[in-house]
Amino acid sequence: MNPVITLLTDFGTADYFVGAVKGAILSVNRRAVIVDITHEIPPQDIEAGAFTLLAAYKTFPAGTIHLGVVDPGVGSKRRPIIVSANEQFFVGPDNGLFTYVYDREPSHRIVHITSDHFFRPQPSTTFHGRDVFAPVAAALANGVAFEEFGADIDDAVRLPSLETPLRIIHIDRFGNCVTNITHAEKSVVINGQTISEFRQFYGERDDESLFAILGSAGFLEISVNGGSAAKVLGAKRGDEVSFT
Amino acid sequence: MNPVITLLTDFGTADYFVGAVKGAILSVNRRAVIVDITHEIPPQDIEAGAFTLLAAYKTFPAGTIHLGVVDPGVGSKRRPIIVSANEQFFVGPDNGLFTYVYDREPSHRIVHITSDHFFRPQPSTTFHGRDVFAPVAAALANGVAFEEFGADIDDAVRLPSLETPLRIIHIDRFGNCVTNITHAEKSVVINGQTISEFRQFYGERDDESLFAILGSAGFLEISVNGGSAAKVLGAKRGDEVSFT
Amino acid sequence: MNPVITLLTDFGTADYFVGAVKGAILSVNRRAVIVDITHEIPPQDIEAGAFTLLAAYKTFPAGTIHLGVVDPGVGSKRRPIIVSANEQFFVGPDNGLFTYVYDREPSHRIVHITSDHFFRPQPSTTFHGRDVFAPVAAALANGVAFEEFGADIDDAVRLPSLETPLRIIHIDRFGNCVTNITHAEKSVVINGQTISEFRQFYGERDDESLFAILGSAGFLEISVNGGSAAKVLGAKRGDEVSFT
Repeated sequence: MNPVITLLTDFGTADYFVGAVKGAILSVNRRAVIVDITHEIPPQDIEAGAFTLLAAYKTFPAGTIHLGVVDPGVGSKRRPIIVSANEQFFVGPDNGLFTYVYDREPSHRIVHITSDHFFRPQPSTTFHGRDVFAPVAAALANGVAFEEFGADIDDAVRLPSLETPLRIIHIDRFGNCVTNITHAEKSVVINGQTISEFRQFYGERDDESLFAILGSAGFLEISVNGGSAAKVLGAKRGDEVSFT
Repeated sequence: MNPVITLLTDFGTADYFVGAVKGAILSVNRRAVIVDITHEIPPQDIEAGAFTLLAAYKTFPAGTIHLGVVDPGVGSKRRPIIVSANEQFFVGPDNGLFTYVYDREPSHRIVHITSDHFFRPQPSTTFHGRDVFAPVAAALANGVAFEEFGADIDDAVRLPSLETPLRIIHIDRFGNCVTNITHAEKSVVINGQTISEFRQFYGERDDESLFAILGSAGFLEISVNGGSAAKVLGAKRGDEVSFT
Repeated sequence: MNPVITLLTDFGTADYFVGAVKGAILSVNRRAVIVDITHEIPPQDIEAGAFTLLAAYKTFPAGTIHLGVVDPGVGSKRRPIIVSANEQFFVGPDNGLFTYVYDREPSHRIVHITSDHFFRPQPSTTFHGRDVFAPVAAALANGVAFEEFGADIDDAVRLPSLETPLRIIHIDRFGNCVTNITHAEKSVVINGQTISEFRQFYGERDDESLFAILGSAGFLEISVNGGSAAKVLGAKRGDEVSFT
């Protein structure tokens, strides 16, 4: 079975960065099936990367290796790590990017990657996606044991809780406002506007009022038919959500 | 031979949607070769999705499974379907997305997917791309027979004809205006401007006048050298085209 | 070992173009592993395509076939070519796109593709990516010898030198200004502003001053912490760089 390696980065798709990472993987493991999750995480936005990874990783099969690179500290002392969780691996910088995986997978383990013979020769200080994380992920995919990359750590960097305070944690392409509420709930208040209808699916009624819906990532979303709830609400990530 | 599954959606590439669909496919069929056609169909624009699929599907080999998800009616009563045509399969919502395939492939068959044991457990009402269409496509790729997913239907939803009235049916990245005229034609009129030159290739002459050219999707296009014909004409999709 | 074919184009990702190229490849070679480098080269910007390919190709394994299509002259007399260099192949138009590969790989060979039986039947004059280059790349991946596609040429089209004059040759997603200087250098002047600090990595100090850094493509870059150096400098590609 060919190994699956996913990519989640803030590299964009216009530069050579993504191509270079894929080449570096294939140079170590020619059988790797490389799957893009996204490269459109806003530059250096670790929190956005952590949310997107949270929403996607569980759909992948056991054995999948997730390469996550949103890495403002590249080249500094921040640690490169591998997380073992959910029968999958997560490779990237220790800056909080995998926080929500730690929360969801209590039996995870984390190693600090110190075995630099897996890195590309003369790794750069500015592109560890290509020179450190890609070859490590490809070596994992070759069957190198998790433990061979370094020693366990228990003090990984964490982002603030995804659970409190109640807030908008993501706005998607369609303008749906994803909150961190995890159950059906009718009346919520955002930016002074009360949303007092709960629906089962987007097109349930054909009007233009705001409604709440339990979304596909497991969180309550605020939506509007055929339009952008974020625009209607003037909402952005981090905006407070409360109950009436 | 590993099965090919293409993806055509309006999900964009910034969210977790595309990654989740790919994970859902690979969880059912680890051998699937997943090919992105595009995820940049404008949100909920079924007609744009239908055109793009029309222009791409014939280049793929026999056996290819096309997953098409532009699905404003997700969660409602609209039917999930599989189309068998051109020795390929098309999986998606019954909302007109496959209209132009029906037109081009008169011997197609359509089944209404009702065998919900192929779906992901507890499918959401908001993300059938991940929970319904991806696992069905992956099961097809595993060799499950077309007929096992449901019964044939002959009343699939259709978009208005692509043949009449004469109009602009697509504007591409380069600003070329694709019409629904399928033969070489010199004098056409769009927005009051007459295009009276037909060329064999884009760079045939080095000037800035508008010209017509038979484009790669089999339709007459209006173009301008090194610029955007759409801007020059102030044209948008749906604008009328006539002969002088 | 399945053959790797990379794609670098100016097609964007919203149209059917990329999907059609991938379908055309898979129709000739079902085992091809297709890897996107980028499709976001600015329309018809051969120089940008040449730089991005330069920065990516060396990370790929021996045997990789790079399909590069930035092709304003499609359909004209410009020649389709294959370059053999660095134990890899490069397939595309003879318009300078592979110039920097010629410079880096002095022992390269170039053939003018004239064996049109490898092309798709009745190739269009507007989409050689699909009808000429894709099937040729797939045939190469099938093991057809380089020499079978045509005769050697030694007069390939070249872009101006990447070495002189000193200038900005690329601005990346993060606003880093990539120069054509290939060594560490402190004081450089761009648009009247002197950059007088050299750093080892981006986050070395937490201030907002401009600094120089040796970047991952092997060129000196001008950067600013957590912001866009291009904006701070008002810089664009081609702007002159000098030493104080």
